[in-house]
Amino acid sequence: MPKEHLNPPRGTRDFFPEDMLFRNWLFERFKETSRLFGFQEVDAPVLESAELFTRKAGEEIVEQLYHFEIHDRHLALRPEFTPSLARMVSNRAGSIRFPLKWFSIPQCWRYERMTRGRRREHYQWNCDIWGEASEVAEAELIAMIFHCISEMGIPKNVVRLRLNNRALLEETLRAGVLAKTPEAFEPLCVIIDKLDKIGKEAVIEQLCAPEGPVRISRASSQETVDLLSVKTLKEASQNAPPNSSAIESLKKLFSLLEAYGISDRVDFDASVVRGLAYYTGIVFEAFDTAGNLRAICGGGRYDKLLETLGGPSTPAVGFGFGDAVIAELLKEHKLLPEISRNVDAFVLALGKEEQQSAVKLANRLRAEGNAVELALAPMRVRKALQEADRAGASTLYVIGPEERDRGVARARSLESQDEWEVHL
Amino acid sequence: MPKEHLNPPRGTRDFFPEDMLFRNWLFERFKETSRLFGFQEVDAPVLESAELFTRKAGEEIVEQLYHFEIHDRHLALRPEFTPSLARMVSNRAGSIRFPLKWFSIPQCWRYERMTRGRRREHYQWNCDIWGEASEVAEAELIAMIFHCISEMGIPKNVVRLRLNNRALLEETLRAGVLAKTPEAFEPLCVIIDKLDKIGKEAVIEQLCAPEGPVRISRASSQETVDLLSVKTLKEASQNAPPNSSAIESLKKLFSLLEAYGISDRVDFDASVVRGLAYYTGIVFEAFDTAGNLRAICGGGRYDKLLETLGGPSTPAVGFGFGDAVIAELLKEHKLLPEISRNVDAFVLALGKEEQQSAVKLANRLRAEGNAVELALAPMRVRKALQEADRAGASTLYVIGPEERDRGVARARSLESQDEWEVHL
Repeated sequence: MPKEHLNPPRGTRDFFPEDMLFRNWLFERFKETSRLFGFQEVDAPVLESAELFTRKAGEEIVEQLYHFEIHDRHLALRPEFTPSLARMVSNRAGSIRFPLKWFSIPQCWRYERMTRGRRREHYQWNCDIWGEASEVAEAELIAMIFHCISEMGIPKNVVRLRLNNRALLEETLRAGVLAKTPEAFEPLCVIIDKLDKIGKEAVIEQLCAPEGPVRISRASSQETVDLLSVKTLKEASQNAPPNSSAIESLKKLFSLLEAYGISDRVDFDASVVRGLAYYTGIVFEAFDTAGNLRAICGGGRYDKLLETLGGPSTPAVGFGFGDAVIAELLKEHKLLPEISRNVDAFVLALGKEEQQSAVKLANRLRAEGNAVELALAPMRVRKALQEADRAGASTLYVIGPEERDRGVARARSLESQDEWEVHL
Repeated sequence: MPKEHLNPPRGTRDFFPEDMLFRNWLFERFKETSRLFGFQEVDAPVLESAELFTRKAGEEIVEQLYHFEIHDRHLALRPEFTPSLARMVSNRAGSIRFPLKWFSIPQCWRYERMTRGRRREHYQWNCDIWGEASEVAEAELIAMIFHCISEMGIPKNVVRLRLNNRALLEETLRAGVLAKTPEAFEPLCVIIDKLDKIGKEAVIEQLCAPEGPVRISRASSQETVDLLSVKTLKEASQNAPPNSSAIESLKKLFSLLEAYGISDRVDFDASVVRGLAYYTGIVFEAFDTAGNLRAICGGGRYDKLLETLGGPSTPAVGFGFGDAVIAELLKEHKLLPEISRNVDAFVLALGKEEQQSAVKLANRLRAEGNAVELALAPMRVRKALQEADRAGASTLYVIGPEERDRGVARARSLESQDEWEVHL
């Protein structure tokens, strides 16, 4: 077998025990936060019909789809979870009770040219609320994000959340530069989402490109980009039409976030639009304040997604929180947890003749709920002490010929070094 | 979007909240058993190089590989976990400490023509011990299987384990019908594994087929099949060469299983060979005693797998325990657990003006570790009582205008119906 096949496929990961301890620790934070907020866990296949994910808005996520034909079926590894979720809700439309609050931690895939530190798969904590149109839904989700980050031991000033309302940009543009081409709004959002990555000039080029999906004038493109630099809700209100419901919605959300005690960690930012075409309202992204990393998580309202699948109009809002950027952040701040194996006891038979007694002791200790590492082969006590220590065991039990004859095992605490005997 | 795309792809599953509660319950049993036996969790990508799985033994699992080409790479969804595990061990050869005891609960895929009740994906609890050649390893694994089954509430007489030693069949055949073609042993095992499914006659046909992979005479085929009907270790000993190490190994294992207190639930059965080519020694399968279902789990020793990947010779033994058959068994015996959502509190604001107070109360209850369902929109108390009850909440908190003015919330126990007030 060629050597390269001994590695996981490019862009994917093996999880050795120490990696898995961290993954489980992270997932446990996601799950516990979900539990506290009353969310129910769901999942869907990692493999879906490709058509579920292919949209016509030119999103990066669609271009990077891991898709293939097998026996005349066009399938894809899910690049995100929301379309599967919409499919599930659609499938139970009629019997499902709203509002529903669902979470999942799916593995998602995107086939991209490999650059340093980028992977082709990641796990993503998804939390979604369906059936609630008010900002209470957004507020719960944003509160979850901060709760989870805090549970990871990340100090208050390290992460901030930026939020905006796509409807605000939409109402402004549809009254102006998109008056005649309102359908260009979705691809426009996909393009301006790249602002941080590709810069103002490149965004303007793409917006006014004659072969592009938006095709507005250069002046209109410039005007659009200028709108994105607004950083206060007050200024945004001045630009917006009078009695703007988008502004009203943002104000309501900020006042709810105050009740949650997190409004001082959230900024209005007109440049946040998110790169997925399906968002319709409030959108948000969390970042490290130092600005070293990509977005930690992001989400928003997507009230029309179910309709595009042929279902009834149903308000929905959610976020995705990946396992990669948060791990980098924890590492950068030296907050990676030290997690031990938590074996309780190490049981050693000194010779083959004592193995059956060792098995019986291990049996009993396990029945009492102890995690027991049973030495599979005889070894010296000295080596067993090292092994027990490495496994994080608190007690070493040794059975030699003398102990076996007397029907006991010698026990030694690895903490206090105390010794005692237990009856077999 | 076509209606069919609203379902998960054929042969795959969505996990709605109630499905997920069961899946988590089942996985928790797997994980807790693994913990008690000192196993460490690992994982590998669901997508691997196809070459990792393709062998030349004509196994069903290889024929049903979910594989495809993408950007000149031949990839496959893993049909089983053991090859990935071998790849991981091989990759760390040199730095890894033996013996190692690893478990995982991977999702595995096989593309087969759909028949009723068969799926194309399942989750499989895998437990493997590497670096230990003695039967203590097999005994620990078999003890885990029974421990786990017992933790699921399955009574003692419902599941039995059948075991055999491939080396026993191998030494007998190599002294006889395979004397000139020892390399035919692996494909021979793959064929005789189908005995229960296709019957004696069909197995004989395949063994002596002139175009088949084994090509022994009809008489030899008959002789081989006859060997499989042996059901006692005593009779097997009489057929085996004198001082057979395969028989010796089986005897040692049975005596260890006695120490574990499970030898009375294990039968010798010469027909058990397992359908994977890589097994070399002890093999075993657990079944419902009523004989209604396929194997609940199965495994065995595969001491040569690492060598086929170019690694050093390393003894290894493991089993896989799927999530499908055990679910059927639990259902059949009415042992499916009743699992509730375990929400602690339901918090309701009677009007929009009270929402901020409700948020603050939810905040506080969550900080104390309670799972809180916060009503996202106002509703009547009567409806809230129903919702709280449905969520399994033990306490309903209500804040109306009067409570808000007085800085309190009304609390009601859903169990005792007691009412009291809490200060906000």
